[in-house]
Amino acid sequence: MPAAAGVINSETKFVLEHFGVPVPETITDGKGKKIILVDHNEVAQAVDNIKEATLMEVVDHHKIGDIQTGSPIFFHNEPVGSTATIISAMYDQCNVPITKEMAGVMISAILSDTVLFKSPTCTEKDKAEVEKLAKIIGEDYEQYGIAMLTAKSDISSKTAMDIVKGDYKHFDFAGTKAGVGQIEVMDLSVLEPRRKEILETMETVRKDEGLSFVLIMLTDVMKEASDLLFVG
Amino acid sequence: MPAAAGVINSETKFVLEHFGVPVPETITDGKGKKIILVDHNEVAQAVDNIKEATLMEVVDHHKIGDIQTGSPIFFHNEPVGSTATIISAMYDQCNVPITKEMAGVMISAILSDTVLFKSPTCTEKDKAEVEKLAKIIGEDYEQYGIAMLTAKSDISSKTAMDIVKGDYKHFDFAGTKAGVGQIEVMDLSVLEPRRKEILETMETVRKDEGLSFVLIMLTDVMKEASDLLFVG
Repeated sequence: MPAAAGVINSETKFVLEHFGVPVPETITDGKGKKIILVDHNEVAQAVDNIKEATLMEVVDHHKIGDIQTGSPIFFHNEPVGSTATIISAMYDQCNVPITKEMAGVMISAILSDTVLFKSPTCTEKDKAEVEKLAKIIGEDYEQYGIAMLTAKSDISSKTAMDIVKGDYKHFDFAGTKAGVGQIEVMDLSVLEPRRKEILETMETVRKDEGLSFVLIMLTDVMKEASDLLFVG
Repeated sequence: MPAAAGVINSETKFVLEHFGVPVPETITDGKGKKIILVDHNEVAQAVDNIKEATLMEVVDHHKIGDIQTGSPIFFHNEPVGSTATIISAMYDQCNVPITKEMAGVMISAILSDTVLFKSPTCTEKDKAEVEKLAKIIGEDYEQYGIAMLTAKSDISSKTAMDIVKGDYKHFDFAGTKAGVGQIEVMDLSVLEPRRKEILETMETVRKDEGLSFVLIMLTDVMKEASDLLFVG
């Protein structure tokens, strides 16, 4: 059973609808479950009680974390732009045909993770898998990727709080507590009319969470440029 | 550069001589070195100062240990009988031809780790890689494997201390400290005339190391049977 460890965002929703794939079940507690970790290999990032789950496999592209097992398992980590690149290659290694739905989900993950090949983590292997998957879905991957990233960056339905908290983490800089967030848009100008509202929300968050400052990075994925909003 | 983390035993010596492969350099300190860990992924089993080395890759078939990295690396672990099975399959995945020397080293590792396919950890993948590598070395793998295991179990040139300390570890059973060793032979009867000498050496080791007991497991690899020698 595919399962998500958190809430589905607007980009994932677009992808699942585009390829007619049902929304996976969300699980939050690993206790007693058999689990394959995908795209993470750290206890802190996994579902609750991961140590009480039976870990079956790990497939990831991040640094090696603190997952340990009591017996040998399949654990494959590779420094490429997306875990979906590794999984797509595994289908070929195991001679398993890729359905249009799976190709759609995987090409979306690679294009999202590598921001249409613009990310510094993007490798030739990511590009090769996208070319392969594009033939299966029968679509131009650049056109599709831009549509997907546009869905991701559609902020019209989002509240200022959604924007601030969409990709938000707490940091502790030698005792100075801060909140840092990021939002990616196709064009920074869409955020301009909402700047005041976002700054006010940031100040509310800063006070409520007892932080020294809150910083939100506004990133234009097409121009590869960022603006910073700061309160504190 | 291939490197060994310890002293070369009589089995490894046989393999390297048989295929004309030079003895690899032995390293004991990882500080400042670039290292690919093969067949282990635990800090305690690695060379000294492994945390001050740059870890480049890990290829293993054991349980997942406590190795962590600061950035993404290639880390491949698979529950098969030998790490050489994984590496042999990687040659094909990467379309790299296998030389006779490398085929010889890898088939030896698989046959040794799986004790000629008799080990419970042996998988169909191990057998398939051995069939593939046997064609490259141009030898009957069963005949070769028996010759290799015979070299491993040739105890005529070994002192009683070599036999006791050949594959020896300390264990702590809730405060009771013990030394546990194992020696594999093709036929247990070869050890019979040396039993008294070995028991005396075990008692010396027990006293010198302040242990409660020392246990040596004598394993007959062909009959898959073991005898135990115990002092304490």
